[in-house]
Amino acid sequence: MLNLEAIKEIATATESKIVLLVLDGLGGLPHPDTGLTELESASTPNLDRLAGEGVCGMIDPVGRGITPGSAPGHLALFGYDPVSYTVGRGALAALGIDFELGAGDVAARGNFCTVDDGGTITDRRAGRIPTEKCAELCRMLDGAGCGHATVAVRPVREHRFLAVFGGGAMSSELSDSDPQRTGVPPGEVRPLSAAATGSARIANDFIARAKTILAGQQPANMVLLRGFAQRPELPQMGDVFALKPAAIAAYPMYRGLARAVGMQVLPTGTAIEQQFATLAASYGDFDFFFVHIKGTDSAGEDGDFARKAGIIEEVDRALAAVLELDPEVLIVTADHSTPALLKGHSWHPVPLLLRSRWCRPDKVHEFSERACSQGALGRFAATEVMPLALANALKLKKYGA
Amino acid sequence: MLNLEAIKEIATATESKIVLLVLDGLGGLPHPDTGLTELESASTPNLDRLAGEGVCGMIDPVGRGITPGSAPGHLALFGYDPVSYTVGRGALAALGIDFELGAGDVAARGNFCTVDDGGTITDRRAGRIPTEKCAELCRMLDGAGCGHATVAVRPVREHRFLAVFGGGAMSSELSDSDPQRTGVPPGEVRPLSAAATGSARIANDFIARAKTILAGQQPANMVLLRGFAQRPELPQMGDVFALKPAAIAAYPMYRGLARAVGMQVLPTGTAIEQQFATLAASYGDFDFFFVHIKGTDSAGEDGDFARKAGIIEEVDRALAAVLELDPEVLIVTADHSTPALLKGHSWHPVPLLLRSRWCRPDKVHEFSERACSQGALGRFAATEVMPLALANALKLKKYGA
Repeated sequence: MLNLEAIKEIATATESKIVLLVLDGLGGLPHPDTGLTELESASTPNLDRLAGEGVCGMIDPVGRGITPGSAPGHLALFGYDPVSYTVGRGALAALGIDFELGAGDVAARGNFCTVDDGGTITDRRAGRIPTEKCAELCRMLDGAGCGHATVAVRPVREHRFLAVFGGGAMSSELSDSDPQRTGVPPGEVRPLSAAATGSARIANDFIARAKTILAGQQPANMVLLRGFAQRPELPQMGDVFALKPAAIAAYPMYRGLARAVGMQVLPTGTAIEQQFATLAASYGDFDFFFVHIKGTDSAGEDGDFARKAGIIEEVDRALAAVLELDPEVLIVTADHSTPALLKGHSWHPVPLLLRSRWCRPDKVHEFSERACSQGALGRFAATEVMPLALANALKLKKYGA
Repeated sequence: MLNLEAIKEIATATESKIVLLVLDGLGGLPHPDTGLTELESASTPNLDRLAGEGVCGMIDPVGRGITPGSAPGHLALFGYDPVSYTVGRGALAALGIDFELGAGDVAARGNFCTVDDGGTITDRRAGRIPTEKCAELCRMLDGAGCGHATVAVRPVREHRFLAVFGGGAMSSELSDSDPQRTGVPPGEVRPLSAAATGSARIANDFIARAKTILAGQQPANMVLLRGFAQRPELPQMGDVFALKPAAIAAYPMYRGLARAVGMQVLPTGTAIEQQFATLAASYGDFDFFFVHIKGTDSAGEDGDFARKAGIIEEVDRALAAVLELDPEVLIVTADHSTPALLKGHSWHPVPLLLRSRWCRPDKVHEFSERACSQGALGRFAATEVMPLALANALKLKKYGA
């Protein structure tokens, strides 16, 4: 496979449009009663027709057996090797609440936790305090400077928050203070390089101050930090692929990931129809659209087989609006599987259909895991989706003389 | 694909069991009379049922077109890139006779050969002397010290023997003395680095002494050495995969390879039923079992199509004992193909079936080369078998945030 530098050499801007429709966590596992997956259970006339007109296959986001987090799953779809290009936990937490990290910022994922009088952790999640309580505590901790650094503290959900150390002098080469178990005190933040000694002191100062401020707050009387990370520095899609890319996503983390690779993030609603309406409204202004549907993954995570199948049907019905636009390349796929039976992300490969005037159609006439595994695209790495999309949009020149 | 360090980060110990059943050299080629391979000719109701319940595919041990030796074939199945992790000929010879190499030992594969009065090689294999004769000659050469090194000499089979240079100061950076052709004298062992000068002298001293000792022994009146190698230093499966692995193999080389990657090698018999009985008896003590069946490969090497098909049927019948254990993950595959028509290892891909509660079954209902090439696992590198096994046993955490 060509690397991004080689792709950049042959990528060329054209008028043609690519729509990459990602049904988060689409792949599933058969229901014990029916032997059919969520996608196989759903009635999807539009997707089946697209599969018939197009070419199908199965993709692996990272590799066989590997269950991807949201960041590797999406980076692979955007064409970035998810092993070479990583997003740290802290940075992902920032992306997840639309917090824009500056070049010198270091972000950490935080937990409010409970410690006893001796300082031993008794609950790593402080009884999962309500998000409102989390927000109130964050306001108490927010803005307190530590040495030369400023610290922004923002609520995420329940006991989880984001801490961003600004000021430009911070290193992210820091160990976690979160021991990831109870019965021990929180750890010191240790520098993982000589250059990070001052940064570790700043982080520990913040933690000490937080302990003082939270002293009377039961059960959230202490903080744990982990995953110190800087803003990911990723090649930009406009530069690498000669695209003008836009993202239509309702959830902050995916908006953040899209922004990190240089997409323009369009304001949109949370309903599928609203997202497709945004696509139609902005169709003339961009040549690449990443449309992210979250509901399939959420239903899978909740173990709600029927709801996941229902959302797939909803997407299928709403798809008429996309088909009217008749993009030169339309791809429907996912960032990973989220089988309702497993109530979480999984390692199973993901079905993909690609329809374009220039694809070579295969014998698949149904959009499902089993049908796509017989498709002519075969089973391939998700990082090859972008070259395939560009090629079918006639946006890639010949490689080599 | 993730490297072993990344896998180690996400591997997690659980109670679930993995059984990796390797039918050595299983893959075949169609018989000219029937158009069916050995596996397709065999009646295999148990394997066919497993294929139906599970998911199938084809694996390449090293790559398309590459015929693997036993070491690369097995290392790949154990999750080790067979190009990065190698086992030298000498070390493999030691593994093959259960000779445990020390940290400072250097092993070489030896041939007894015939030289004429002028010292020219006339037969590289000394007329394939019987193994008993080989053992007798080895006893004559064994134990003779050369400088600071001791030399252990052990028979392998027919004209082949093992020479192990101990003492701790030996380098393996030595050229072969075996010119691999007749009509020339044996070569000098040359140092391949400055540090190996003394080691080359020790090896040449041994060869000179052997020549004197064997002077009257027709036809085995000289030795040839090749493949000087140290003990392979491989990451240990327990460490990398968080497994407690055991090997059930009747043949020394496979026991040796298993020991080299950190498996505990269990005593067992040579019959398939005995091997499966060992599996049942030790089932509670480990969570990963490599079970190695040699007969399929031996029959293939002998060009005995019918015997190979018969052994496959024997495995299928005996499989009932494995099915009773109902392991969380059961994989049936091979280290390479050994078509009876070729009488040797070949480059053809190898069928694989994986059954687990969490696999996504495909449409394959027959365990054969042709059927598995339609399986949903597709065609993939044998190094991905281990991640896939671990995932299906729920032993791999999510990769990336």
